Amino acid sequence: MSEYPILSKINTPKDVKRLPEENIGALCAEIREKLVEVVSVNGGHLSPNLGVVEMTVALHRVFDFPKDSIVWDVGHQSYTHKLLTGRFEEFDTLRTKDGISGFPKKEESPYDDFNTGHSSTSISAAFGIANAKAMNGDNSATIAVIGDGSLTGGLAFEALNNAGRFNKNFIVVLNDNKMSISKNVGAIPRYLTTVRIQPWYIRVKKVTERALSHIPLAGRIMKAFLRRSKSRLKNLVYKNTLFDCFGFTYLGPIDGHNVEELENAFRAARKNNSPALVHVVTKKGKGYRPAEKEPGEFHGIGQFDIDSGEPISSHKGFSAEFGKTLCEFADRDDKICAITAAMTSGTGLTDFAKEHKNRFFDVGIAEEHAVTFGCGLASKSYRPVFAVYSTFLQRSYDQLIHDASLGQNHLVLAIDRAGIVGSDGETHQGVFDVSMLNTIPNSVIFSPTYFEGMRKALYNALYRQSGLAAVRYPRGGELYKPADFPEESIDYNIYGNPNARYLLVTYGRLFSYACKAKEKLRSRGIDVCILKLCKIKPVSGEAVFFASRFKEIWFFEEGVKNGGIARNFSDLVVFRGFRGVYHIKAIGDEFVKQMTVSEALSMLKLDDEGMTEVITKDIQHEKKT
Amino acid sequence: MSEYPILSKINTPKDVKRLPEENIGALCAEIREKLVEVVSVNGGHLSPNLGVVEMTVALHRVFDFPKDSIVWDVGHQSYTHKLLTGRFEEFDTLRTKDGISGFPKKEESPYDDFNTGHSSTSISAAFGIANAKAMNGDNSATIAVIGDGSLTGGLAFEALNNAGRFNKNFIVVLNDNKMSISKNVGAIPRYLTTVRIQPWYIRVKKVTERALSHIPLAGRIMKAFLRRSKSRLKNLVYKNTLFDCFGFTYLGPIDGHNVEELENAFRAARKNNSPALVHVVTKKGKGYRPAEKEPGEFHGIGQFDIDSGEPISSHKGFSAEFGKTLCEFADRDDKICAITAAMTSGTGLTDFAKEHKNRFFDVGIAEEHAVTFGCGLASKSYRPVFAVYSTFLQRSYDQLIHDASLGQNHLVLAIDRAGIVGSDGETHQGVFDVSMLNTIPNSVIFSPTYFEGMRKALYNALYRQSGLAAVRYPRGGELYKPADFPEESIDYNIYGNPNARYLLVTYGRLFSYACKAKEKLRSRGIDVCILKLCKIKPVSGEAVFFASRFKEIWFFEEGVKNGGIARNFSDLVVFRGFRGVYHIKAIGDEFVKQMTVSEALSMLKLDDEGMTEVITKDIQHEKKT
Repeated sequence: MSEYPILSKINTPKDVKRLPEENIGALCAEIREKLVEVVSVNGGHLSPNLGVVEMTVALHRVFDFPKDSIVWDVGHQSYTHKLLTGRFEEFDTLRTKDGISGFPKKEESPYDDFNTGHSSTSISAAFGIANAKAMNGDNSATIAVIGDGSLTGGLAFEALNNAGRFNKNFIVVLNDNKMSISKNVGAIPRYLTTVRIQPWYIRVKKVTERALSHIPLAGRIMKAFLRRSKSRLKNLVYKNTLFDCFGFTYLGPIDGHNVEELENAFRAARKNNSPALVHVVTKKGKGYRPAEKEPGEFHGIGQFDIDSGEPISSHKGFSAEFGKTLCEFADRDDKICAITAAMTSGTGLTDFAKEHKNRFFDVGIAEEHAVTFGCGLASKSYRPVFAVYSTFLQRSYDQLIHDASLGQNHLVLAIDRAGIVGSDGETHQGVFDVSMLNTIPNSVIFSPTYFEGMRKALYNALYRQSGLAAVRYPRGGELYKPADFPEESIDYNIYGNPNARYLLVTYGRLFSYACKAKEKLRSRGIDVCILKLCKIKPVSGEAVFFASRFKEIWFFEEGVKNGGIARNFSDLVVFRGFRGVYHIKAIGDEFVKQMTVSEALSMLKLDDEGMTEVITKDIQHEKKT
Repeated sequence: MSEYPILSKINTPKDVKRLPEENIGALCAEIREKLVEVVSVNGGHLSPNLGVVEMTVALHRVFDFPKDSIVWDVGHQSYTHKLLTGRFEEFDTLRTKDGISGFPKKEESPYDDFNTGHSSTSISAAFGIANAKAMNGDNSATIAVIGDGSLTGGLAFEALNNAGRFNKNFIVVLNDNKMSISKNVGAIPRYLTTVRIQPWYIRVKKVTERALSHIPLAGRIMKAFLRRSKSRLKNLVYKNTLFDCFGFTYLGPIDGHNVEELENAFRAARKNNSPALVHVVTKKGKGYRPAEKEPGEFHGIGQFDIDSGEPISSHKGFSAEFGKTLCEFADRDDKICAITAAMTSGTGLTDFAKEHKNRFFDVGIAEEHAVTFGCGLASKSYRPVFAVYSTFLQRSYDQLIHDASLGQNHLVLAIDRAGIVGSDGETHQGVFDVSMLNTIPNSVIFSPTYFEGMRKALYNALYRQSGLAAVRYPRGGELYKPADFPEESIDYNIYGNPNARYLLVTYGRLFSYACKAKEKLRSRGIDVCILKLCKIKPVSGEAVFFASRFKEIWFFEEGVKNGGIARNFSDLVVFRGFRGVYHIKAIGDEFVKQMTVSEALSMLKLDDEGMTEVITKDIQHEKKT
């Protein structure tokens, strides 16, 4: 471990506190080196972590975790925190099966107070923790670290509104890197720019800093400063940041790469008698040149070459294909709009944003608003397409019911990362969207297997539907396609012997595995026909009728079983007279942990091996009984 | 119609514009009389509508609907708008089957631009509409009318953040009545109080008003005023309301009962070159003394006596029983906390709020925050109970998955208004909560029929569960209970002949109807046993085993079929060897419109008559085939 002479000796945050000031710069450099080293191999969130190295070190020098509590918003910036809290040795297992998570995990360390993964939850959770402590007579501090991007999520504002009445020991650290994943949008980020550059604020800051750094009892000092100040103007400015409107004492802006300045601000915040907001300005990707230059590209990344920063593998996946297709459609139809919740690049909309600038809407990390806003566009005859990751769409459930479906507004959802996503783990699996949409009256869902099906489904959703219509596709690209498979239909395809005894039904990515399973089963003398659905709600009556004639059906579904399509389908075939045995293999009442997609599908018995095994066993079992 | 000499002659908003100024007071008085008359008979939202009479009249005098567009937040305050847009004659049918809706409905009138019902959607929807118009080169105005209560919902902030960059013709009217349903909480309402009482603002307002009322081109005037102003102070204050941080031009506060002042402000807003926020201060319940005195009681109300304001029928329902029970538990356990999203009275928590003040949290209209905040409390070993209407819980779906269940935080949900709710109609039906919770791994759901079951279930959820546990109960009180029915179990009860051929399975309120159906069927010679579930997820293995021995099963469910318990149960009995016929009667892929609860259950064939009919027909059908 001589590579990391200082970092490797940090076993607990106490070691961070004990570190002589002159070694802090070296510690930060070692942390950055370790971050780049591990993420270049395992993939992960790089830029967000590079940006908060000094901030995290300063937090650990000022506060006393885990007595004090900390909630990391999203949690993708908690790597340094992990390295400083006894997880340096295991850090190489980051984001691998049974390894260190890319997000805070209570199960992993007592220093992780609250599990995160989705955006904008930190102030709410931390405020709950702070209230629990207050009721317990516990005076320790509670801290939420939130980025300026996450602050565009409504949940954060709900929490700010609620927390403004609180007394003390509650600190929000605003990590202002001027970005969410890509460049930030909206009024709040623009407002923060104003705050950063206004000379008033800087002046107030300078005075405050001096006061704070010279005298320890900062809260009283700040009041004294305000009393002393003859200028009503300064007073007013000091009182009139956005955060003061919410009842927070504003401290900042603070240079997020100056540990001493950070420590002073955190000490002042701790001694303040009202909730405090410390505005820390950081540089996303700081200290690793490729990430500084392209912080968006290095937000969340797969394996890359450390020297060049070039990704090691990159394939054209569904996201890119969706973006290209939507651009083509929009070239011919000026009613098509694209909406993203701060995921322009991730959802493949970079070109659309350039080519159809006035019809492209990045609404911030605001999935609820994205849907209702889209419904507003649709109500005036535009054709909005909201491109969103499956897991984040969960936040729009009420708006999908209330504004899209019930309001009869024609909103198209392009659901990316549908199904298992891999190393981001439990919080990010796209396994709920089908069940969620399935409960919504009149919703239409397409789950194609190949690019061609995705394009057709998108066209159908745009021009053949009139309400809520979703097209969902997995992370990554097309998988195995048998040479003798005909054109993908947007309704259903039959592949194999229609007179077989056994029928395998599935949709989306799993069809590729099913085709391989079919070959494996044939080699064992089991002839299985495949019914591949693309439009999974409502399912074609013809497909149901076709299925109802088989003796035995297996439905494989890459999503939670409760509320899933397999159960809908079971009802439908029984209604059409099916009296055989019906098996469902889907995701049970459990969360799927971090591991690669292949590992997860194998564990769930949803890959070719799993399907083969399940079907073989079921048949053997029946022969016995 | 001589009772309403002016109002009855208003057929379109043009008639409002044409009305001589001296008649406006009389028009407003007639509107109030009509509101009280109809709501006293049909029930409805009274106080919110009484508060916005002048504002609505002024909007119709200044703007040109439906060319200009308006979105009413929640929409419960749109009655005056309905009376002024050609719906006076039909207004007596308010909230009845096939009658006028209590919320805006595009299907009802071209003057209703966007359907609402749930809180905080208006700015998002209106901003979508405004963007669609801008792309179309349409310069008409788009208005969102939102209460200060709804402004505590995160969705509204997501929209404000997004809208701050917009150019013009976009106006938010903030209807500040200092209340949501009950007294408002949090920093934003407190901040609005500051804005209302600060002399600076009043001064600015006075000057602005003078300027605006004398010179028509208000936008330019306002700029001139700011330029003219020698005082940097005024300028700063003017620029530094919360709404200016979001990029909105702030206009206000305006007296919400002075039509002339309102008209001036709306004209100024229309001519402004940035998005404008008009802060209108109204009195909830204005003009009807009982509602002015108790605006919370008259927010949403059933039939009442006009003279006294006393409700005509009132029963102690599940809400009251829940509140009483939780108080009792909290007397003995100081870890129990109660959380409400601005529904203290509606969810039965009024006494809890008094008796356990420091453990009671009204977090604002913020269901997402309520859940994550509760998870924060739970993470520090408190026992939070979030009491919420079924329909509003939809907004917490992601937080329930991500923070409660996946985070393994022990959050108890007390889900009120579960099932059909009646005259509030489609937007408020509590028919999705079971399917929604059913998709969430490890969630536990209780759906008792009687108070006794509710109390036991709440105890179990608090002390025998460790993750997300929900107890749900309907609007209203206990229904029919057979004299020979034993004690309600939190798992399941068997009622009737266990050796019968036929089994009826149900849960919650429907059990009362099932008992009556059982008697009716017996009189037709059909012997049906009833399996009454209380814990509907997971279902007791014993109950499944019991059911699996029957020849034919009917599952009646007061919720959407997709994702519901009937389908879970079907899987389970088949797995235990059931090979008979399994019928599901639940709510199909449709929304249930406004009508009384009895009318709806009858239409859905979920009442005793419906159950009897369904079972009889199925049996006859099988005998034939």
